[in-house]
Amino acid sequence: MAETTDGKQERLRQICAIAARVFYEKGYDGASMQDIATAVGLTKAGLYHHVGSKDRLLYEIMNYGMDILDETVLKAVAPIADPREKLRQTILGHIDLVIRARDLEITVILHENRSLKGALRKKINARKKSYIRFVEDLIAQVQRQAPAPMRSGPAAPALPPRLAAYALLGMINWLYQWYRPEGLIPQSELAEAYVDFFFRGLLGPSG
Amino acid sequence: MAETTDGKQERLRQICAIAARVFYEKGYDGASMQDIATAVGLTKAGLYHHVGSKDRLLYEIMNYGMDILDETVLKAVAPIADPREKLRQTILGHIDLVIRARDLEITVILHENRSLKGALRKKINARKKSYIRFVEDLIAQVQRQAPAPMRSGPAAPALPPRLAAYALLGMINWLYQWYRPEGLIPQSELAEAYVDFFFRGLLGPSG
Repeated sequence: MAETTDGKQERLRQICAIAARVFYEKGYDGASMQDIATAVGLTKAGLYHHVGSKDRLLYEIMNYGMDILDETVLKAVAPIADPREKLRQTILGHIDLVIRARDLEITVILHENRSLKGALRKKINARKKSYIRFVEDLIAQVQRQAPAPMRSGPAAPALPPRLAAYALLGMINWLYQWYRPEGLIPQSELAEAYVDFFFRGLLGPSG
Repeated sequence: MAETTDGKQERLRQICAIAARVFYEKGYDGASMQDIATAVGLTKAGLYHHVGSKDRLLYEIMNYGMDILDETVLKAVAPIADPREKLRQTILGHIDLVIRARDLEITVILHENRSLKGALRKKINARKKSYIRFVEDLIAQVQRQAPAPMRSGPAAPALPPRLAAYALLGMINWLYQWYRPEGLIPQSELAEAYVDFFFRGLLGPSG
C-alpha cells in the first residue's frame, strides 16, 4: 500500500519477466494465472491485484519488451548522425535483443502476436509500427545516400524500403526459432554476416 | 470400417485441414479436442479413433504440411538442372506456400514449432532439416557457379550457405506474421523483390 510509483513499476517489471518465462514455456493459452502466481510467489488474488487480468499481463509484458527495445537499441543509436552507421547499429542491437535468451519479453512479443486482442493489441501494434517506420525511414535514407554507381547499372529497381524493412525484420526475428547461442556459430559472426548480406542486398557489393 | 488405406489417408487429411484452422485460431494449447471434434463434425471419441491423441494430431498436421511442401514446391523444381533457376523457383514456391491463406498447415508448422514434443517433434524436425539442407546445398551451388567478378573484388567474404539459408527462410517464413494478400503489395511484386534482394545479397548486383 505504501509502494511508490517507481516501486510499483519495478514490481510490475519483475512480474513481467517471470510471467514471460511461463508464457514462453507453456504458451499464452496453456499457462494459467495460477501457474504464473506460483512462479512469481504470489497468491492468485495477489497477482490479479497487480496486473488486473491475464490479457492485461500479456500487454504489460509486450509493452515492457518494447521499452527494452527503446531503452537499449533506439537510445544507443539516437546520437548517430550517419544513416548507414545508424542502421548498422540498429541491426546489431536488434539481433542482440532477439538472441539474448534472458529477455523472454521479446520472444513473447514475437510469438504471441495474435494472442492479444482489442484495444491492448492496437496499442502494442502502434508501438511495433512506429519501430518498423523508423527502420524503413533509415533504409530510405541509406538508399538515397548511396553513391551513384550502386544505384545505376543493369541492376533491378531499388527494393521498396517497406519490403526491405520487413525482409530485415524477418531475418532477425526468425532467429528466435533456430539460433542457439551455445551452438557452432558465434553471435558476432552471425551478426556481421547478416549486416553484410543485408547491405549488399540493398545496395550491391560495395554495400 | 470398410475404408481403404487411400480413403483413410484422405479422411485424415480432411481432419488435418480443419484442425489446422482451429489451432490457427485458438492456438495449440487453447484448442480442445472437443473444439476440433465439433469443427470436424465427429464425436470426441470418433476424433480420437481417427487421430489417436492431440499431440499425434499436431504431428499429422505438420507432416501433412511438409507433404504439401514436397508435393508442390520440391516436385516442381526437381527437373530444373540450373541451380540458380532451381533456387529462384524454390523461393517463389515457398513464398506462395506461406502466403496462400488456405494452407494453414504451413502456419501451424511455423507457429507451433515448440508445441510438439519428444519423438514426434524429432520426426518433423528431421523433415525440416532435410529441406534446410536442400536450400543450403542449392545456395552453395549457386555461389560456386557465380562468375569470378562477383566473387572477387573488395567485397566481404561469401556468406556461409547455412546462414544464407536461414536468412532466406526467415524472410519468407516471417511473411505469415505481417503480409496480407488483400493489402497494398501484390504477391508477385513481393516475390520478385525478395528474389532480387536475396540474390543480390548473396552474389552482388549482377546477382
